[in-house]
Amino acid sequence: MIIVMSPESSQADLDHVVARIRDAGLTEHISRGSERTLVGAIGDERALSAQSFEQMAGVERAIHIVKPYKLVSREARPSGSVIDIRGIKLGGQQIQVIAGPCSVETQEQMHLAAAGVHAAGCRMMRGGAFKPRTSPYAFQGLGVQGLEFFQAAAREYQMPIVTELMDVRMLETFLKHDVDVIQIGARNMQNFDLLKEVGRVNKPVILKRGLSATISEWLMAAEYIAAGGNNNIILCERGIRTFETAYRNVLDVTAIPVLKKETHLPVLIDPSHAGGKAWMVPALARAAIAAGADGLLVEMHPNPCDAWCDADQALTPQELQDLMGSLRLIAQAIGREL
Amino acid sequence: MIIVMSPESSQADLDHVVARIRDAGLTEHISRGSERTLVGAIGDERALSAQSFEQMAGVERAIHIVKPYKLVSREARPSGSVIDIRGIKLGGQQIQVIAGPCSVETQEQMHLAAAGVHAAGCRMMRGGAFKPRTSPYAFQGLGVQGLEFFQAAAREYQMPIVTELMDVRMLETFLKHDVDVIQIGARNMQNFDLLKEVGRVNKPVILKRGLSATISEWLMAAEYIAAGGNNNIILCERGIRTFETAYRNVLDVTAIPVLKKETHLPVLIDPSHAGGKAWMVPALARAAIAAGADGLLVEMHPNPCDAWCDADQALTPQELQDLMGSLRLIAQAIGREL
Amino acid sequence: MIIVMSPESSQADLDHVVARIRDAGLTEHISRGSERTLVGAIGDERALSAQSFEQMAGVERAIHIVKPYKLVSREARPSGSVIDIRGIKLGGQQIQVIAGPCSVETQEQMHLAAAGVHAAGCRMMRGGAFKPRTSPYAFQGLGVQGLEFFQAAAREYQMPIVTELMDVRMLETFLKHDVDVIQIGARNMQNFDLLKEVGRVNKPVILKRGLSATISEWLMAAEYIAAGGNNNIILCERGIRTFETAYRNVLDVTAIPVLKKETHLPVLIDPSHAGGKAWMVPALARAAIAAGADGLLVEMHPNPCDAWCDADQALTPQELQDLMGSLRLIAQAIGREL
Amino acid sequence: MIIVMSPESSQADLDHVVARIRDAGLTEHISRGSERTLVGAIGDERALSAQSFEQMAGVERAIHIVKPYKLVSREARPSGSVIDIRGIKLGGQQIQVIAGPCSVETQEQMHLAAAGVHAAGCRMMRGGAFKPRTSPYAFQGLGVQGLEFFQAAAREYQMPIVTELMDVRMLETFLKHDVDVIQIGARNMQNFDLLKEVGRVNKPVILKRGLSATISEWLMAAEYIAAGGNNNIILCERGIRTFETAYRNVLDVTAIPVLKKETHLPVLIDPSHAGGKAWMVPALARAAIAAGADGLLVEMHPNPCDAWCDADQALTPQELQDLMGSLRLIAQAIGREL
Repeated sequence: MIIVMSPESSQADLDHVVARIRDAGLTEHISRGSERTLVGAIGDERALSAQSFEQMAGVERAIHIVKPYKLVSREARPSGSVIDIRGIKLGGQQIQVIAGPCSVETQEQMHLAAAGVHAAGCRMMRGGAFKPRTSPYAFQGLGVQGLEFFQAAAREYQMPIVTELMDVRMLETFLKHDVDVIQIGARNMQNFDLLKEVGRVNKPVILKRGLSATISEWLMAAEYIAAGGNNNIILCERGIRTFETAYRNVLDVTAIPVLKKETHLPVLIDPSHAGGKAWMVPALARAAIAAGADGLLVEMHPNPCDAWCDADQALTPQELQDLMGSLRLIAQAIGREL
Repeated sequence: MIIVMSPESSQADLDHVVARIRDAGLTEHISRGSERTLVGAIGDERALSAQSFEQMAGVERAIHIVKPYKLVSREARPSGSVIDIRGIKLGGQQIQVIAGPCSVETQEQMHLAAAGVHAAGCRMMRGGAFKPRTSPYAFQGLGVQGLEFFQAAAREYQMPIVTELMDVRMLETFLKHDVDVIQIGARNMQNFDLLKEVGRVNKPVILKRGLSATISEWLMAAEYIAAGGNNNIILCERGIRTFETAYRNVLDVTAIPVLKKETHLPVLIDPSHAGGKAWMVPALARAAIAAGADGLLVEMHPNPCDAWCDADQALTPQELQDLMGSLRLIAQAIGREL
Repeated sequence: MIIVMSPESSQADLDHVVARIRDAGLTEHISRGSERTLVGAIGDERALSAQSFEQMAGVERAIHIVKPYKLVSREARPSGSVIDIRGIKLGGQQIQVIAGPCSVETQEQMHLAAAGVHAAGCRMMRGGAFKPRTSPYAFQGLGVQGLEFFQAAAREYQMPIVTELMDVRMLETFLKHDVDVIQIGARNMQNFDLLKEVGRVNKPVILKRGLSATISEWLMAAEYIAAGGNNNIILCERGIRTFETAYRNVLDVTAIPVLKKETHLPVLIDPSHAGGKAWMVPALARAAIAAGADGLLVEMHPNPCDAWCDADQALTPQELQDLMGSLRLIAQAIGREL
Repeated sequence: MIIVMSPESSQADLDHVVARIRDAGLTEHISRGSERTLVGAIGDERALSAQSFEQMAGVERAIHIVKPYKLVSREARPSGSVIDIRGIKLGGQQIQVIAGPCSVETQEQMHLAAAGVHAAGCRMMRGGAFKPRTSPYAFQGLGVQGLEFFQAAAREYQMPIVTELMDVRMLETFLKHDVDVIQIGARNMQNFDLLKEVGRVNKPVILKRGLSATISEWLMAAEYIAAGGNNNIILCERGIRTFETAYRNVLDVTAIPVLKKETHLPVLIDPSHAGGKAWMVPALARAAIAAGADGLLVEMHPNPCDAWCDADQALTPQELQDLMGSLRLIAQAIGREL
């Protein structure tokens, strides 16, 4: 950490800063410049809080030099992580497209959906049994029965399932129903008690980025899960909130190369929630794969017109199949496979 | 709801839209303009989803006319709500400043803090026993012991306490320890299971605005609590996330007059988290009261230098006392009292 | 336009609204719903201002139904525009990559740059002679001499040149030096006098999106140019400003499919300014082409280490050549050519 | 400047960094930490570009320690600037409210407006003769005739006038018509040629903040004016662009204490453009004064219903008078006068 002293600071101010650095078990390194005096704190700076220095007399600014995340940082595993999901590899050479409806509605709908996902060549399936809805008056999901419908349909095609966990109290139920991948939604990215709980289980976790979470906050949320002992973490960017009102969110493709540099975790993109309209999905999906994403989370519904939620962002089974064809060519263009 | 048909839409498209409106129990009203045909849906439009119309063939856009919130809307209680917290009124003529440390640290710290809060003329106290921290390696709060230290200190001065609930599983404990006001933090504003649970109890709830939550999303989160039967809801703006990096967040004072128009719920401002620095707090606190806020949530620590978290945003007891003096004059200037 | 009357509005309020609609030469269409009365204004609503209605007694909201842009809208030319730049087509089947240094420095630098751009297979060249710099103490560009160095170098390879115009008073000079494509920078996107002037000349114009300009504002800025009679307009997205601090800007790929739907103008992407780092450029460039962009504006410098500005975002000639190879494969994957 | 070397950097990388520091006339100071080596550059770091270091091999990050602005920084004039506008002081003990219509429409309207502004107790008047409009089809201002109407009306009451300059070519005309204060609008905050020109004249300049300009960019824009020799600069915050759609912009009151710390320039607030609705203006105006602003720029129209632009944000003469009364009390509460 670098502590920048203000031009008006006294020797006593400097002495206090030095004392605090030593108290934390680090050593100081003082550098007197032409306009400012700087104090470097040498040792494991994660033990220091920039805030507590900035509040001291004579201190202008305190700057962290080392990133706050450790277990999930690229430095911790330079080769990158490949997550094994019932034999399917995520984060390696092969790109994974995980498709399915926004919400589980009926057993029949899920059978049709599973058939469509499988026919398009996808190897995993998504679907929501517990739904985070902005309005208390909107459909909140089928709950446990939804998990049953989902498993029944996906198991027919040996597809692992991905579904969202919103409430810590349901974790046992998720394990009992053998959910293959637990999704933590954007609104719960900093629900720290939930992160701690999924950090204790032995199931892959997809951690969606909060609507206005910085890369650093997102990786710190992943660090919560890793700190609990669960290293099977997959990141998923789903669009960020900006000033633009012409579309729901802005898909942040810039995050893809940045995450690839900062962390060893695999990166998924959810083009359906980002744009919010089915007609935007193919362009965004292609961009994501071209930029280096390890896979996609895509909404598909056997009959989008009748979907109980997010009707306007689901692809039809045929559209998914067409998209897969086009993504296969892009994957080849960048030396990967789909 | 208004459904705007695209210029290329057919009569069949229009017929489908009309059929869907009738299916939902509403009636249609068709208006053919020079460039577009519009369909109005007459009846309780909260039953309709704009998304499911926008996904239909020939539909360009669907626009909600009525606001999605109902119980918390100003229309539901035009005179405004006054919340009674153990005899102290929040939302009326008198402005309430709720002060205290970021986190409960020791019994002694809490006694000193309570003395300072009371001496400054505040009638309620805040403090965190369970802390939402960006880093898993940061201090996570004293937990239940913190609640005990807090109550012991605040009860000496008959001050009701405000403290944050992060985990649904701790609600029973909060009730057992007779927490007076339950705070839902910014990161949990859309933790819908938590909202549902606090909607079922008979305790005032402070609902902080998410860092990038719109007014509409925030009021819908309050609607979740109200829909459960708990009408003792207090909103708290604590700064929003923007592009600016010179300060932590931007205090959104524009929200104050807008909330006063849109909802009957009282509005607090948290100037400490907004700016992130103690030296900004007086200016922001004055702005908030001048703009019509019903109260403040302010961080004060008996010895900010040694605070275990957010050290640089806490006022000293003396600074709090000075601030109260200046706020009293502002309150008088706008015809209220402190 | 739809005018939503508030529940408390009177018949007199309604009459005033109707009178104002008729005054503007439109006709009204009244629809009484269960909660609100709506008034539709039938005719060319571009003559009406939503603001002037919203200020009238009894009016809750006024909503434009038709988009404010006309000449640049997709409806005006459904097949899309192809701009001819000295025989090179932009907006058609062939993708154009326009490369070159941030700023013109010396004649030798420009010769080396032109050779590198041409060797990589690009057909047009970019370079700045007049530079918009955040600091008054930073290098402001070589000015007219820069235009001369640039033309001398590019003409050797018959490459049209693209360069930025900042000041209306320099337009004559640009024409005299036969600049092929005039670039309007992000900071000048709403410099309306400049837009009007380039609207009067017969030169293609690249209009960069402002850092926080909405799609609608951007298209309205293009409409200024088109309204002057110049239809050779090319849009260029260069990253938008968000809350994220890990990279300079967020490349808004979602804008690509949206612009393709809303306007007939060709769309370029500038991956260099978006990310701000050379190592991000290949991923962003691939994403842009995969999402349907008509071309790129890329920074390349013969020796990035010694560049006088934006040193860390320029590719080397070799990196540009490698990038072109990879973009060629992506272009083929989506049925286009490079 | 601090240059942070990456853990993998070599001695040769370090040598190159040191050489570049020495080339710029500064000296290095090397500090080897447990995880990273840091290089401090001692001397006037404004001569160094962080970008050019970040592009060098082995460099992870380069951090400026000193702020980039100099002439406008608080350090340059710790006591603060008071601008004299034909005998009226802005930036001192007395708060100035500058009121008037959005645009100059007719001579009669301006006479009525001037009478209203003066009757309310304001000492300066605003009004637009050249209007920056999002749409090319909207009213663009009366131009030179507008200046004449404005001066004729304001001179009756000896009120200095404030009006916006959009085009460098009109500066002579502004001087000829003796405009007292030149306003640079938000959209032109980084129109550097315009800034340079107003830096050369001897007239006070109000520099509005761009919709998404950071404090640092804004102060650098002011530095452009100061670098030209004109120190009579007044800053004006007018709302920033965020994700919120319930109101036009968010008034950034946090900027007020921050500017007071960072710069010696006076600070105005424009509550009319920030919220975009007349009914929000009183709350925002009060907040601004309470937070320490030196004055306001407020829209008032003799007959808002008939205003040619921004009709819904103008106060009536009576509303302005009422507001002034309430602001007077707030000014007293914080020890100032109105």
